[in-house]
Amino acid sequence: MDFEKVVKERRSVRDYDGNRAISDAELQRLFELVKLSPSSYNLQPWEFIVVRDEENKKRLLGCTNGQKHIEQASATVIALGSMNPSGKAEAIAADRTGKGAMDAAKKEAFFARVKSLTLNEADARLWAVGSTSLAAMTLMLAAENMGISSCPVGNFDERKVKKEFGIPQDYAVVLLITLGYESKPAPERPVRFGYEKIVHLEKFGNNAEG
Amino acid sequence: MDFEKVVKERRSVRDYDGNRAISDAELQRLFELVKLSPSSYNLQPWEFIVVRDEENKKRLLGCTNGQKHIEQASATVIALGSMNPSGKAEAIAADRTGKGAMDAAKKEAFFARVKSLTLNEADARLWAVGSTSLAAMTLMLAAENMGISSCPVGNFDERKVKKEFGIPQDYAVVLLITLGYESKPAPERPVRFGYEKIVHLEKFGNNAEG
Repeated sequence: MDFEKVVKERRSVRDYDGNRAISDAELQRLFELVKLSPSSYNLQPWEFIVVRDEENKKRLLGCTNGQKHIEQASATVIALGSMNPSGKAEAIAADRTGKGAMDAAKKEAFFARVKSLTLNEADARLWAVGSTSLAAMTLMLAAENMGISSCPVGNFDERKVKKEFGIPQDYAVVLLITLGYESKPAPERPVRFGYEKIVHLEKFGNNAEG
Repeated sequence: MDFEKVVKERRSVRDYDGNRAISDAELQRLFELVKLSPSSYNLQPWEFIVVRDEENKKRLLGCTNGQKHIEQASATVIALGSMNPSGKAEAIAADRTGKGAMDAAKKEAFFARVKSLTLNEADARLWAVGSTSLAAMTLMLAAENMGISSCPVGNFDERKVKKEFGIPQDYAVVLLITLGYESKPAPERPVRFGYEKIVHLEKFGNNAEG
């Protein structure tokens, strides 16, 4: 589908046809685009749990304040961000070294930078949330491109989600994203602040003119 | 351009043709798509400073550890996230009320939820970073769709950026994004972890099979 059409037609959908499924093949097509999102030093801290089982969707619903579309959706994705990028850093360094793009000095600098991202827990969490949110946006747009609607859910009990789905402590639960086929059209799009409201030219306060 | 082509062709570009400009009209087209990104309660905490002036690009370069593409790029965007969403909440409530979609009880619940997002500074910052990162991904893809390359820069001195560009304290500097026309093709794409590595089915550790 045309890129602008995808962006313009994506809406946050909360009314799904619970009878339509999303297949493994569709998930694979979706995540092979999600993986192309950018990240600091290519560390790709994002991981995703895809929940399609009815009982598991109920358990996930119980971790929110009752957002029923989590149960009705064909799938709900739990978007995670690793707060400990060193494991992936080893694989990335090996790939770069193998391609002749990383010598010993570059490798040392790379590991020093990786370490600097997560010097304390607050920074590690901010980094995980920012990175995974980039991938989450790609996910929602890529779903729309496949005719699959979505809705991001930011209001959940992180401790409960981690416990229910066996998520290790060094991951942040960044966002839940419901995926499915809308059962009724989304209501009129609410107000969006445009170019002249959100863009400043050269310095803060010098708003662009629309 | 086709959506999948945009996602596949977007690369982080660090070599720009400094002689090509990005016009106000192009910025407007770009940000009218960026504004369609989703946010909690439609609060849209993202704002952007677009830096095109040579002296200002130099000042911004001085806030990083020497990432020269900030100076070579046609424009560098400072992506900000407001950590104080109550101002925008008033405008959003007025819009919803005017459309008959928000009565007094819903309005009260809405303001309570808005307040809950930013109960403390750490939560407010996480929310601002997550939300603005969604918009930042839309920005990079929408630029690619216009033939404009980009590169996200996460390594900068936030205090210095705020001071140099007059940014109020209650904004987080989330990301810098260079925009421009590549002067040489990006090198081979480094390794990306695919579907079977980043997707877990139903619970953490139960990896999808590719």
